[in-house]
Amino acid sequence: MPLPAPPVGPTILRVRQTRRVRKIYVIGIGAGDPDHLTLQAVKALNKADAFFILDKGEEKSDLTRLRHDILDAHIEDPSYRLIEARDPERDRQTSDYSPAVDDWRRRRADLYERFIAEELGEEECGAFLVWGDPALYDSTLGILQEILERGAVTFDHEVVPGISSVSALLARHRTGLNRVARPVQITTGRRLAEGWPEGVDDVVVMLDARQAFTRHLDQDLFIYWGAYVGTEDEILVSGRLSEVSGRIEELRAEARARKGWIMDTYLLRRG
Amino acid sequence: MPLPAPPVGPTILRVRQTRRVRKIYVIGIGAGDPDHLTLQAVKALNKADAFFILDKGEEKSDLTRLRHDILDAHIEDPSYRLIEARDPERDRQTSDYSPAVDDWRRRRADLYERFIAEELGEEECGAFLVWGDPALYDSTLGILQEILERGAVTFDHEVVPGISSVSALLARHRTGLNRVARPVQITTGRRLAEGWPEGVDDVVVMLDARQAFTRHLDQDLFIYWGAYVGTEDEILVSGRLSEVSGRIEELRAEARARKGWIMDTYLLRRG
Repeated sequence: MPLPAPPVGPTILRVRQTRRVRKIYVIGIGAGDPDHLTLQAVKALNKADAFFILDKGEEKSDLTRLRHDILDAHIEDPSYRLIEARDPERDRQTSDYSPAVDDWRRRRADLYERFIAEELGEEECGAFLVWGDPALYDSTLGILQEILERGAVTFDHEVVPGISSVSALLARHRTGLNRVARPVQITTGRRLAEGWPEGVDDVVVMLDARQAFTRHLDQDLFIYWGAYVGTEDEILVSGRLSEVSGRIEELRAEARARKGWIMDTYLLRRG
Repeated sequence: MPLPAPPVGPTILRVRQTRRVRKIYVIGIGAGDPDHLTLQAVKALNKADAFFILDKGEEKSDLTRLRHDILDAHIEDPSYRLIEARDPERDRQTSDYSPAVDDWRRRRADLYERFIAEELGEEECGAFLVWGDPALYDSTLGILQEILERGAVTFDHEVVPGISSVSALLARHRTGLNRVARPVQITTGRRLAEGWPEGVDDVVVMLDARQAFTRHLDQDLFIYWGAYVGTEDEILVSGRLSEVSGRIEELRAEARARKGWIMDTYLLRRG
């Protein structure tokens, strides 16, 4: 008669706890040029079993295609899964910015939590692809932190830094972000519209839907502006703000009408 | 009797002007991890006939080796030339910062000008390898601009953006540079020692030889600190500044004594 099996329950439980953890990569894929991808990003792409993709509506035709091209070009084993969902709508009309953003973030967190819990096996690895650098004006890291704090799903996560739209813009203009031993501020169009930041002569502006640079035409400023930087639609303008501001407004309106969306960034430098 | 050759001087001169131009790549090679290299950087490395390398003395054993490893690993045709020179000494004792920096920059410009004029054939391509991103606290772009303005040597140049030490630091800490819709300032240790910047709650500090964070222990701050980020010597510390400041000072002194040099960066975040 065989011996009864030893009681292994607790041991197996410990193994499950230490080994069976979902792994999430947050991968910066650069600012639009597929060659912005780092070797580290290529390696991470090849470790993922599933990619979580949010469809942002109008940007879809260009950016979704570019993202698919990146996956096709760099993943050796094509058996990965694409998990796609529609990005939660955000109320952009409200003047009360933070509650609208909080609500949108919560709905995005719900979605990401479902992605991780329902679409990923316990030992699998999933990836979020982030345009630019995950550290710069992107919500993914904050949302993953929020999901971990909720405690309903556990996972390990790793961040792969990417070429930010700021680095890409300045490389194309062949200029630096800061001047020697001087500070630089990175801010939003909304903030710049409220006034020039204190204590800095170099300001990078992101997320500017309202062309806030037009509020500062009376200052002695130089602008380095770019839209769709790194892509085949790239537009670059630099010059004295008072001289090129109108041209940027025109180009911006034309491009936005033609493509249905625009992604632009600029550096303002006080003379 | 053969006809005399037609006068081709001006034509040839035009061809020389348009085709025979030296090309310079300024290539961001990331913050220390060889896998930070982008695909664009790998392509640019393979176009260069010569690499211009400045030896900075004490950093040599680690960083020079790492740079050579990058070239060895990614360049297919090993017939490239390495042009190495000693970086001009900079007077770091003077309290008058700008003239010392100006003098050092001028001597560096002299050296780079000689590199380009004397070490590169008229149709050749040279490259400067820059740690991190060429746009962020690096002098190469400004110095090349100065050389072009002198007018003694002409060249075309192209910038390949890189993973900055800031992106690398924040990726390792899995946190963002900015908080939702908020600005961030990037500044130097020297400036932070003079006071907390106006109007921002998130400050990234670079080039801090004096541990300027110790001047702000009375504030409610969180610090994300890292040294040698991306390399095998990487050290990371995060926590409430008042609680971890002493530990960072110890680790920093130890590492600096052991290796002879240190490269560290940090984000301070107001609570």
